[in-house]
Amino acid sequence: MNSFGRLFRVSIWGESHGEMAGVLIDGCPPGIPLAPADFAEDLARRRPGAPGTTARIEEDIPSLRSGILSGMTTGAPILISFDNTDVKSRDYDEIAHKPRPGHADLTARQKYNGFNDPRGGGHLSGRITVGLVAAGVIAKKIIGESQAFQAEVIEAGGSKAPDQAAAEAAAAKDSVGALIECQVDGVPPGLGEPFFDGFESQLAHLLFAIPGIKGVEFGAGFAAAKMRGSVYNDPIVDASGQTATNKAGGINGGITNGNPLIFRVAARPSASIEKSQDTVDLRTGRPCKIQTRGRHDACFGLRLPVIVEAAAAIVSVDFALVAKRAH
Amino acid sequence: MNSFGRLFRVSIWGESHGEMAGVLIDGCPPGIPLAPADFAEDLARRRPGAPGTTARIEEDIPSLRSGILSGMTTGAPILISFDNTDVKSRDYDEIAHKPRPGHADLTARQKYNGFNDPRGGGHLSGRITVGLVAAGVIAKKIIGESQAFQAEVIEAGGSKAPDQAAAEAAAAKDSVGALIECQVDGVPPGLGEPFFDGFESQLAHLLFAIPGIKGVEFGAGFAAAKMRGSVYNDPIVDASGQTATNKAGGINGGITNGNPLIFRVAARPSASIEKSQDTVDLRTGRPCKIQTRGRHDACFGLRLPVIVEAAAAIVSVDFALVAKRAH
Amino acid sequence: MNSFGRLFRVSIWGESHGEMAGVLIDGCPPGIPLAPADFAEDLARRRPGAPGTTARIEEDIPSLRSGILSGMTTGAPILISFDNTDVKSRDYDEIAHKPRPGHADLTARQKYNGFNDPRGGGHLSGRITVGLVAAGVIAKKIIGESQAFQAEVIEAGGSKAPDQAAAEAAAAKDSVGALIECQVDGVPPGLGEPFFDGFESQLAHLLFAIPGIKGVEFGAGFAAAKMRGSVYNDPIVDASGQTATNKAGGINGGITNGNPLIFRVAARPSASIEKSQDTVDLRTGRPCKIQTRGRHDACFGLRLPVIVEAAAAIVSVDFALVAKRAH
Amino acid sequence: MNSFGRLFRVSIWGESHGEMAGVLIDGCPPGIPLAPADFAEDLARRRPGAPGTTARIEEDIPSLRSGILSGMTTGAPILISFDNTDVKSRDYDEIAHKPRPGHADLTARQKYNGFNDPRGGGHLSGRITVGLVAAGVIAKKIIGESQAFQAEVIEAGGSKAPDQAAAEAAAAKDSVGALIECQVDGVPPGLGEPFFDGFESQLAHLLFAIPGIKGVEFGAGFAAAKMRGSVYNDPIVDASGQTATNKAGGINGGITNGNPLIFRVAARPSASIEKSQDTVDLRTGRPCKIQTRGRHDACFGLRLPVIVEAAAAIVSVDFALVAKRAH
Repeated sequence: MNSFGRLFRVSIWGESHGEMAGVLIDGCPPGIPLAPADFAEDLARRRPGAPGTTARIEEDIPSLRSGILSGMTTGAPILISFDNTDVKSRDYDEIAHKPRPGHADLTARQKYNGFNDPRGGGHLSGRITVGLVAAGVIAKKIIGESQAFQAEVIEAGGSKAPDQAAAEAAAAKDSVGALIECQVDGVPPGLGEPFFDGFESQLAHLLFAIPGIKGVEFGAGFAAAKMRGSVYNDPIVDASGQTATNKAGGINGGITNGNPLIFRVAARPSASIEKSQDTVDLRTGRPCKIQTRGRHDACFGLRLPVIVEAAAAIVSVDFALVAKRAH
Repeated sequence: MNSFGRLFRVSIWGESHGEMAGVLIDGCPPGIPLAPADFAEDLARRRPGAPGTTARIEEDIPSLRSGILSGMTTGAPILISFDNTDVKSRDYDEIAHKPRPGHADLTARQKYNGFNDPRGGGHLSGRITVGLVAAGVIAKKIIGESQAFQAEVIEAGGSKAPDQAAAEAAAAKDSVGALIECQVDGVPPGLGEPFFDGFESQLAHLLFAIPGIKGVEFGAGFAAAKMRGSVYNDPIVDASGQTATNKAGGINGGITNGNPLIFRVAARPSASIEKSQDTVDLRTGRPCKIQTRGRHDACFGLRLPVIVEAAAAIVSVDFALVAKRAH
Repeated sequence: MNSFGRLFRVSIWGESHGEMAGVLIDGCPPGIPLAPADFAEDLARRRPGAPGTTARIEEDIPSLRSGILSGMTTGAPILISFDNTDVKSRDYDEIAHKPRPGHADLTARQKYNGFNDPRGGGHLSGRITVGLVAAGVIAKKIIGESQAFQAEVIEAGGSKAPDQAAAEAAAAKDSVGALIECQVDGVPPGLGEPFFDGFESQLAHLLFAIPGIKGVEFGAGFAAAKMRGSVYNDPIVDASGQTATNKAGGINGGITNGNPLIFRVAARPSASIEKSQDTVDLRTGRPCKIQTRGRHDACFGLRLPVIVEAAAAIVSVDFALVAKRAH
Repeated sequence: MNSFGRLFRVSIWGESHGEMAGVLIDGCPPGIPLAPADFAEDLARRRPGAPGTTARIEEDIPSLRSGILSGMTTGAPILISFDNTDVKSRDYDEIAHKPRPGHADLTARQKYNGFNDPRGGGHLSGRITVGLVAAGVIAKKIIGESQAFQAEVIEAGGSKAPDQAAAEAAAAKDSVGALIECQVDGVPPGLGEPFFDGFESQLAHLLFAIPGIKGVEFGAGFAAAKMRGSVYNDPIVDASGQTATNKAGGINGGITNGNPLIFRVAARPSASIEKSQDTVDLRTGRPCKIQTRGRHDACFGLRLPVIVEAAAAIVSVDFALVAKRAH
């Protein structure tokens, strides 16, 4: 449902065009210094601004409502909320009965018997990832300097020039997909709880929760399906487990091996485009056209790297807390 | 850890070269007819035999130890065990101190402080998937005729002739990866519990638990990253949600949309190959070579389709049970 | 940790003297009418006012921050917050180093390495039950008219005149314990998920989370230990399971039997009393005296009935949602 | 459902008159020495034999099927099974349509639509506690010498002479309830995860899962409801938290305080008695009489102490593993 994690537990809430979006974090250890300013950098990275990203710009000032005393975490749940201020819901009137192709408009309506909030995607909106980024900031603070998270867009629409591809798509009243790669240095060996809760399982679980992700691969990923073992297998260099290559992406048997964690996610294009698309009018059941005029990203993939990093940090912290039990 | 699912809960146990492997299933509704013969077809599909699969052949006769009365499920937990009979543990003596590149030998040793069972991979072995297939059989029985699961190997080593590619790799004392595609017809709309437990999240979680999976994609998957929205978005054909194309793979916003579920998984090559590979001798810390002479699959991907189907069936049943709450 | 429930999931957050206290509810079905006014009656029952209850009076106006659209639940998480307005933290300066006997002051300090919020008990305060009552209101709304929850204080300090006993304790600068009995009519048969999640297990789990509860019994409870089976066993009257007596309290084998649910909880006296008590000064490790002068309940048990009802309603709804799976 | 615990996770399976009963334990740390002989003492304590206990005597030889290598736990799930050998199911034919008053016969039938195993109570039988005791043995092994668990029957039928009370009840073709008290010395401070997962909450959850438990109290328990605070509150003696009295039973605010853990459970009388009782014939819906002639305990409470200890040990280990995260 809306919670993730075993000992570091993240619960997401809020809507795109509701009063607020936010996150509740349970299991944060006590004694971690935490202030609103800690969130600024990562929230800025998630915020739009570049060509090909939405014109809706929220200030994203985090309100820390609980779990903090004198600038330190207390061990109690941390509630963080973000006001929604730059909302124009009238943009979305049409989609209430004309579901956008590629979007959750129709599935959400079916699942929640029509009671879901359709404005801007409601709870199933990219807006909700603001809470995920906030949780990621806390996870990174817990981890400290020992791990370095670095994600970037390496392709958009098949081009290595993602910004340009996004701008061209926007100019064409269209949208475009993107490929994001993330590397995490310093992940300790031994994280992951196979059989079912290996590192890949948990991280993929969380990554696929990010709206619009349609593929996740670790290390060589899909290319591994084309390889022979003598090419794929990473030669082991020393007893700590360091390997000469890293086609496993830092994970063997669902357990981190001490090498850098490497994975990629594929983001589909934004569903909302101004180009005319075929859909049905739910009032009549008849075919019709829809052109989405609301503000939206032509390439929301450009905003994903910091969200992907947050996912990796959340999973890393959760596993680290669980792993302590063994010692 | 070793359990998966919310209301249909699968717990896996056993070792490759221990006495048994098996599965405990909690939450199976009462009144489902179930007999050992129901497992025969799917277990046979998992069993090796083709060129490029291991020479170790287990009979895989399921013993139903609890939860069944007069051939029907009772609603109590179902314990299923499989005896390990065709075990040659001496084959694995060497790997106790010479970890195989690409394998969990070293990470398991590190994580479990050397107490893990190293014989044949112990608990982190493909052998353990026999229990997953058994759980999948039960899930399929609960689902009945309404859904049709069909997975197949569509590539091995980049070739569309997987059997030949596997045989060639085996002849070369090497192994080879594979690409498996699964389609499920008849999945009802409305399955999936976003934000964190969307259909893709749960299914990817389970798929990545299968040993050797390094990539998962739904619908267009990684190709979506290269597309524009006007190409990717599936035109909606009628009010039920049927679409003209299926690049979303049957899922929007983490919720099934009533179209066929389509996904692919990438399996790395087997770690165990007879070709000489570089590793370290853990007794000395010095570099050394290892050649794995135990019986193993050159392309375990050939045995994956029924396991992948089991994963899809397990997730589908679990979501269906959860979804009933809304009515 | 701070979440309870399987499909109707309640997460509690906030502090006694922080900015807010509140609750996040996940899994509420869509289409339930919900407005702030719905909470008024139960929140008023929790509020102090009678002799023997604290002089701190919060207005307890619920702010519904998410999960509601046009006065109906949407199926998305519902965040409810309550501002803390009537806070006098200086009253609590002393307890930072002089832990109150009978209170969590010292255990919380030990567990959270001194980073916990000590003001008014912080997160481990009766104040936090305001969120539990709010969740109970929603649970009751989901249940509708079919079940009737009725809890009352039947004893305080061993007296059947609880208000008088509380007033006398207050006059004596002391506090007093209380016994609360709850009956729920209309609970359907079949709720409860044994072996581990029987109705008694889940409800006792939640009841013992209410600060100050030290005993829970169902039906005849502790008196059953003194009975013979011929006296205890409830004669079955008809095939629906109605019984002539109700010593089982409506539950057999962890499963509701269709008769009224009956249980009792024992509340210890308030830890905070003005009478001088023996403790230690944590700065010196030396024995000292403490007199608690903050505002507090002499008999917080008087405020418990509506909280106990909330617990029963939450458990009942959660089980009902789970039970739907069987049909 | 049938699993309990967060990091030390116990899953119970089997039936009273099925082939086996047993337990699956996930999360046991690697490197714990474990052999069948370790179980002998506690299993013997659970076994009947005294007057007032059942004539059915199982040998209770534990088969350790997985998770053990060379006499040490590996970190993988541990499956333990017990064969059912001394089964006389014909004794129970009548109860299939004449539900015993005070028993789960009818509720189980209703819940599982008649597919439940009715023989000897099936999965909802005291027989199933054999797995709980086995899990308790492992928990005690993990804990080692640092904690001492001691439970005993302190009353049966209101008498301090429990054995005699049980024998008298048996002679009268009746059964009798019992009161069990448990003390655990050496529980470290800081165990418990409030708000919802305090020590009392988790332990009561597990205790109420033991068939026939109708009341649980900690420390002064129900007597606390009759006390004033100046009497109830335990004076704090030193900075470690030692108290002069122990009316809190070793727990404040859901967190252990380092003093001995003390709690009591009330067991109802056995439902199965030879005395004639009123019930209905489910085939006709008409009132009828039932006399239970199967072998059964007149006072199953006599066999509870070791089960109650097991529950305390399981909860203690699980909390200890979780608590490690904070350091």
